Amino acid sequence: MNRKIAVVLPVLSSSQRDRIAREAASLGFSTLFFEDTASAIPHLSDVEIILGQDAKLIPNAPSLRWICTPSAGVNPYVDDSLYHSPDVLLSNSSGAYGVTISEHIVMVTLALMRRSSEYREIVAERKWIRNLTIRSIRDSRITLLGTGDIGRKAAARLRAFDPACILGVSRTGKPDPLFDHNYTLDALDSLLPKTDVLIMSLPGTPETTHLMNAERLAMLPRDAYLINVGRGTALDENALEALMRAGHLAGAALDVFETEPLPADSTLWTCPRVFITPHNAGNMTLGYTVDQIVSLFLEDLTRYANNLPLLRQVDRRRGY
Amino acid sequence: MNRKIAVVLPVLSSSQRDRIAREAASLGFSTLFFEDTASAIPHLSDVEIILGQDAKLIPNAPSLRWICTPSAGVNPYVDDSLYHSPDVLLSNSSGAYGVTISEHIVMVTLALMRRSSEYREIVAERKWIRNLTIRSIRDSRITLLGTGDIGRKAAARLRAFDPACILGVSRTGKPDPLFDHNYTLDALDSLLPKTDVLIMSLPGTPETTHLMNAERLAMLPRDAYLINVGRGTALDENALEALMRAGHLAGAALDVFETEPLPADSTLWTCPRVFITPHNAGNMTLGYTVDQIVSLFLEDLTRYANNLPLLRQVDRRRGY
Repeated sequence: MNRKIAVVLPVLSSSQRDRIAREAASLGFSTLFFEDTASAIPHLSDVEIILGQDAKLIPNAPSLRWICTPSAGVNPYVDDSLYHSPDVLLSNSSGAYGVTISEHIVMVTLALMRRSSEYREIVAERKWIRNLTIRSIRDSRITLLGTGDIGRKAAARLRAFDPACILGVSRTGKPDPLFDHNYTLDALDSLLPKTDVLIMSLPGTPETTHLMNAERLAMLPRDAYLINVGRGTALDENALEALMRAGHLAGAALDVFETEPLPADSTLWTCPRVFITPHNAGNMTLGYTVDQIVSLFLEDLTRYANNLPLLRQVDRRRGY
Repeated sequence: MNRKIAVVLPVLSSSQRDRIAREAASLGFSTLFFEDTASAIPHLSDVEIILGQDAKLIPNAPSLRWICTPSAGVNPYVDDSLYHSPDVLLSNSSGAYGVTISEHIVMVTLALMRRSSEYREIVAERKWIRNLTIRSIRDSRITLLGTGDIGRKAAARLRAFDPACILGVSRTGKPDPLFDHNYTLDALDSLLPKTDVLIMSLPGTPETTHLMNAERLAMLPRDAYLINVGRGTALDENALEALMRAGHLAGAALDVFETEPLPADSTLWTCPRVFITPHNAGNMTLGYTVDQIVSLFLEDLTRYANNLPLLRQVDRRRGY
């Protein structure tokens, strides 16, 4: 076996490593495991495949034919100049994060509706105030902007709460039974005024940059909620903050930002009714997510070894 | 119309009042509305029915034949000495709170599993730490201790998150398709060691007092979660706190307490991994809940007017 795979993922358990090494060997590959980029780089000269989350690995692997990212977003990996050849394949781990991010979505939706931040302050002062008016997912109109794995798993979970409707908006508008209706982006402006909860799970591409701009944010009802778990660039953060400081929107839960980490001097930290999380909705802190990353990679490795197209191949120009 | 109903509920909207008055009139009753007990008491001498949340109303209504509480719990109303006759009917609004309390249950389950309290502290300091190990409802073993309206609605919502199993434990153990299995209380001790999330929604009765005692709490896995939304008396709070301070249980979300309000000097306020809410999971702060209270009352009022048994009549001796 002189075909080599480099796996650069510190979160793997020993059983996950064993699983990769065993299945790779059965396909004729030997596997090298590294904890970080620095320790991997000296060993990449003859590596054919990388599973790893650092674009700096790419120019250091002159024999690379395929890099699989453990993330769903691929922004750091789409720059052609990283690659020694346009034929190097890029794939992602789309499908690994739907479970954890959809749980984040439900958690923050309920936290906003049930005014959890205010109740936490009340409890911190050991007060017994319990009469804040709250809202419910039941009978709410939910619009998912982005209907990939995350949007679909969120829709499946939110459905159990008996919302008034769950609408999906995506580039293709392809019908999907998890949604009451599926729309293309053209319909967005007509849907926003009828949306109680807008959930954004868009990739970061030129097409999605500031898709939710000041004009569209203002189309949402004054008491609507906005949740962003996709990429921060899809939302005009300054416009959101200005509108919210002026009293628009009942709440927003932001896990992603135009600049990450969110700068310590950002005024967004103190914007009323904004629930900030540090891009932790979908990272690799859930064992199930890492299991999925391994499973998806091995599924595509089997296809690669059999000269079949990868299931999660990314179009570097399109960006997802 | 000299048959009178007194409604003592400050949370009613004008349309909810109109609805009660209109339907009551069609059944031959006139309706008096009061904002509080003090303003109601002088007008209760010839009142036949009360919809209201204060046991002090009862001894002030010598003509009372039926009191309906807008709450689900009836502890303050079961004392026979309040009543001028053992024949006075007591009913509750069981069924009005399942939606709001089940949303609380899902919210706090996810908040505990996703370490939301710690992340809120991280964000309060404007830090960008995102590597806390988290857990998921997916593949978790859930046991609902109490399978009434709250337990059933929680089961329906939790099911959408693909748990390993959802087990129900109740007095009768009656089979219910919302659960994978239904058990009587006899089975509890054998189920606790196989439970990742224990959700308690028990009424406060002599039978349930300290049902979850030190011995049973210790049967839960060390990394299990406990949620109590029923009555605080069903859980030995001191035993829970001692166990948690010793490192047992990954988290607990308590909305109800043995003494309410939870005393300001209670050591429970500072117990690690305990998420306290001020008995706000199921109060009347959600419009939908009040709509349901009105609907359930009017349903039973129609039955009462037609000499049919009330659907939500409470056995004062049994306590629910």
